[in-house]
Amino acid sequence: MRDAESPVVFQPMGRTVHVLRGTRLLEAAAGAGLAFDTPCGGEGTCGKCRVVVRQGAGEPVDAERRVFSARELTEGFRLACQTTVEGPMTVEVPPTSLLATQYQILARTEAEAVAAVDPPLRKTFVELPAPDRSDDAADLARLRRAIGPVEPDLDLLRGLPGLLRPQAFRGTAVVADGRLIDFEPGDTRALSFAVAVDVGTTTLVAVLVDLTTGADRAVASRLNPQTGFGDDVLSRILHAQQPGGLEDLRQAVVRAIDEMLGELAAQAGIGREQIYEVVFSGNTTMQELLCGIDPRFLGEVPFVPATSDPVRAAAAELGFHIHPRGRAYVLPVIGGFVGGDTVAGILATRLDQSPGPALLIDIGTNGEIVLWANGRLAAASTAAGPAFEGARIAQGMRASAGAIEKVVVRDGGLHINVIGDVPPVGLCGSALIDAAAEFLRHGLMTSDGRLVPPAGLPQALSPELRRRVIAQDGKTAVVLAWDADSGNGRAVTLSQRDVRELQLASGAIRAGTAILLQRAGLRPADLEAVLLAGGFGNFIRRSNAQRIGLLPGEIPRHRIRYQGNTSLAGARLVAVSENARRTAEELARRTEHVDLSRDADFRWSFAESMIFP
Amino acid sequence: MRDAESPVVFQPMGRTVHVLRGTRLLEAAAGAGLAFDTPCGGEGTCGKCRVVVRQGAGEPVDAERRVFSARELTEGFRLACQTTVEGPMTVEVPPTSLLATQYQILARTEAEAVAAVDPPLRKTFVELPAPDRSDDAADLARLRRAIGPVEPDLDLLRGLPGLLRPQAFRGTAVVADGRLIDFEPGDTRALSFAVAVDVGTTTLVAVLVDLTTGADRAVASRLNPQTGFGDDVLSRILHAQQPGGLEDLRQAVVRAIDEMLGELAAQAGIGREQIYEVVFSGNTTMQELLCGIDPRFLGEVPFVPATSDPVRAAAAELGFHIHPRGRAYVLPVIGGFVGGDTVAGILATRLDQSPGPALLIDIGTNGEIVLWANGRLAAASTAAGPAFEGARIAQGMRASAGAIEKVVVRDGGLHINVIGDVPPVGLCGSALIDAAAEFLRHGLMTSDGRLVPPAGLPQALSPELRRRVIAQDGKTAVVLAWDADSGNGRAVTLSQRDVRELQLASGAIRAGTAILLQRAGLRPADLEAVLLAGGFGNFIRRSNAQRIGLLPGEIPRHRIRYQGNTSLAGARLVAVSENARRTAEELARRTEHVDLSRDADFRWSFAESMIFP
Repeated sequence: MRDAESPVVFQPMGRTVHVLRGTRLLEAAAGAGLAFDTPCGGEGTCGKCRVVVRQGAGEPVDAERRVFSARELTEGFRLACQTTVEGPMTVEVPPTSLLATQYQILARTEAEAVAAVDPPLRKTFVELPAPDRSDDAADLARLRRAIGPVEPDLDLLRGLPGLLRPQAFRGTAVVADGRLIDFEPGDTRALSFAVAVDVGTTTLVAVLVDLTTGADRAVASRLNPQTGFGDDVLSRILHAQQPGGLEDLRQAVVRAIDEMLGELAAQAGIGREQIYEVVFSGNTTMQELLCGIDPRFLGEVPFVPATSDPVRAAAAELGFHIHPRGRAYVLPVIGGFVGGDTVAGILATRLDQSPGPALLIDIGTNGEIVLWANGRLAAASTAAGPAFEGARIAQGMRASAGAIEKVVVRDGGLHINVIGDVPPVGLCGSALIDAAAEFLRHGLMTSDGRLVPPAGLPQALSPELRRRVIAQDGKTAVVLAWDADSGNGRAVTLSQRDVRELQLASGAIRAGTAILLQRAGLRPADLEAVLLAGGFGNFIRRSNAQRIGLLPGEIPRHRIRYQGNTSLAGARLVAVSENARRTAEELARRTEHVDLSRDADFRWSFAESMIFP
Repeated sequence: MRDAESPVVFQPMGRTVHVLRGTRLLEAAAGAGLAFDTPCGGEGTCGKCRVVVRQGAGEPVDAERRVFSARELTEGFRLACQTTVEGPMTVEVPPTSLLATQYQILARTEAEAVAAVDPPLRKTFVELPAPDRSDDAADLARLRRAIGPVEPDLDLLRGLPGLLRPQAFRGTAVVADGRLIDFEPGDTRALSFAVAVDVGTTTLVAVLVDLTTGADRAVASRLNPQTGFGDDVLSRILHAQQPGGLEDLRQAVVRAIDEMLGELAAQAGIGREQIYEVVFSGNTTMQELLCGIDPRFLGEVPFVPATSDPVRAAAAELGFHIHPRGRAYVLPVIGGFVGGDTVAGILATRLDQSPGPALLIDIGTNGEIVLWANGRLAAASTAAGPAFEGARIAQGMRASAGAIEKVVVRDGGLHINVIGDVPPVGLCGSALIDAAAEFLRHGLMTSDGRLVPPAGLPQALSPELRRRVIAQDGKTAVVLAWDADSGNGRAVTLSQRDVRELQLASGAIRAGTAILLQRAGLRPADLEAVLLAGGFGNFIRRSNAQRIGLLPGEIPRHRIRYQGNTSLAGARLVAVSENARRTAEELARRTEHVDLSRDADFRWSFAESMIFP
């Protein structure tokens, strides 16, 4: 049974998601990668998640009437946590409502935010006294008097005398990452841009930021073309060992990002050369491939990266076409499988500012888990397996058109949502979690992960659900979509084997969490927050994830919060703030890297975690 | 009357000079650019200037008998200050006898010197523990534990994992100028080379130094091919303003030096890629042209350089082929006309270590003068004019074959020495000074620089000298070589106009010296040392230079000391010693740049200085 989806457009980001009617706007926004600030846990009391609904606003609820004036309500002001999607909507999101952007990180109001922007790209308008016989200091020394100590690029130094004089020593000095890279005619301080890039294994996302205001000016995303060489990190590492393989991979991602830089500039109506810096965040392998670093040994025990420090280089040296002397900054990493994206995540979520113990979880091919407790940060990665990305699931697929992304049992029926509003051809990770949780709730599956054969199903089960439990290759399976309803004439089913894969994936995350907690002397209930990072995290139904034990069931659901693309948000902060950059470097250094495979308790905990709660 | 010259070969430098019989070996060595350490002022008492004469040793004099044992005397040990050239000689020069090399600067004995070598090129042999599960630090972090904080070249980082493992984390880390540039298999510490280059307006000289011992391994020199674009600094600056002119000049000098680097490597039997660093010293214009910096404004008041700091770059970025990630270091400058060569000179002569007031003079197209007094360094440049290099002198020429380089009046006759033992065709700067001094002594010239016409010559003058005074174009002139003895059938004469040019050149140096002394509240007699730097300085007869007032006549001659090529010696120190490098940077910063043209007294002093003492 397919439910109708409605499109929701978020502005100014211009992001659209399709969600089932009845979905809370907060959840819809999470699907669009937008994480709201919900200190009250989405209970409608704090008023932080305010939005302006321009199209499709329903009647305000009581909580909204308490927060907003009548005039505001007429203008469309609503609370994202209280409003549900009932049809097509267009929603404006004030930056102050979002978590994990510089607005929140640096300050609580927009005005404060602008004042707090301290970009590593520094433009200084100077009017220097021209040299004369009483002051014959060298050109660079003269400039330094005004802008402080900087090292010039040789290329700039070569032309510096000829740049200063036609402008009568009046112009804008451009310093990026501590290096003097230009001296521009006139006052160009208002034109100051950087780009932050999330280099995902699957998806590349880049945002162009105006460094004078801290505002996003353009966003671009596309598939990481390295997927042509293999879907996961390990297949890329293997390809890099072929002759010319590393260069293939490097060029593929560099060309794609370089094209995105052009798109961003075009969108914002600026020239490429007005982008002065690009900041990159990704997992360790993605970052090494981007830099052209031989990643061979990231695929071998003990998975050691070439460097854990940030890579600072001329953007041109990495192959990017921005300002001719523009700079590139690649985030520091914590370990071979805990990369710059995790550092960015800690930074963007202010995990280490949390008053109590808090967990950051990024579920992907690898699940990265960071625990903040007792003033210490510890990070681990678990080979969660690609189950959540659809791999090793018989009819699994990525969260793309035709994927069942949601499964709900309601009124004795099984309801699904399909991405793209087309007939289903498979299921993606969030539906896998939904299905398992619903099966547990309704007795279609036992807690050890056995799908109950038709003969053993509970008496109370509706005939409609009962019909869906079938025998397949001698094992039990459950039909999510009948052949007649599917996009390829083939029923979409969930098999016993699929459930085992889910148990492995979920168990790894759960065991990793358990070990980190145990090392800190904590129980799951002690966690004041569980922050979900990454694209996949945004699609997870929290209660279902808790039901199957992927997320701790011992804490109230409101403590589990969607954080959106924290890799991008962190990279963005590092582009916008020198202070954030230093913080990222410090976070990378101080986060303990826990090798779970060395932990004596891990295998035992893993085995135990395979049992659903 | 031409005197016979004898060749003197200095080893291990392999330098040869031709000098008149009777010349002191100390002076002959100065002609070869070798400056001996003569704390006793060449009186034969300190024993510092010891050499071994392998061919052409005469009988030892008393001073030598006091210093050396009978056995040493038999082996050829002599004092350079006491031995005269009486025929062809071959002389070995122990490094400890030389001034202005790292041996003297850093320590007094060779053993101490080796210990004191602290090259900025640092090789460290390491045997690192291989990573395992209990220690999964990144490769670079692992290396840093052993060698301290260094920034890696991106190019190196790219291949670092693949460099470390085949060598089982055992090998030699190469750090140049604070950057990690290589990790070599095995222990390569013994192979560690740098090159120091004196980038002269006319001549390029380069020395290959073994950084493990501090010893010179090879020397190369050639004409600066930029001379094809103009002889002096200003003509080069003008050429750089032509379209493509700067690039012509840059490529010319870079290609020449790059070829020299190949020669040096071949001489020493090493590969180019074993040279890890090149240090450059030259006047400000030469250094800017080498770096490809637009030098236009060095030709305009107030003669401001692009930078006064050292330029640090990848050698490849400047166009040199050494180690693929090798580094280049260009000395800091003091001002537009007081360049890295002067900084090198202060460093090499330890001017600022002098116990009393001391002057460093480098006489060339520009005369650079540095005064050390009262704990302060002050430097000025004077447009000495190219007279000393033969320009603007009717029959002037550079100190090359066919140039009269020495003029002596003895026994009523005028004796000349000609470079290359060929018939003369002109005269060079040292002969100009000699001639003027001798003419003053013997009444052929008055102290205001007027050549005395034949009718007014002193009665006592020999007929041979009297015959040489002739009328030429209505003015008086003196014949140095008759047409029959010359190489081109044309007599070599010194004209009244030539004397005026000398007065201008000498007067500028003298006035500059006077102003610096006056500002420090000193008189010439207070100078404890006058150090002569540069190729030309080595050819000057000190007493003659004092006679015409080019050098202060008020001080004993032994206080005037030849220092050889201090630009090269200083560059060499900077290549060999991190401490020397820091010192050079500090010297450049703390040396006050005195603009003589702004000094109210300078023009007056200049006019006065035109009169010979």
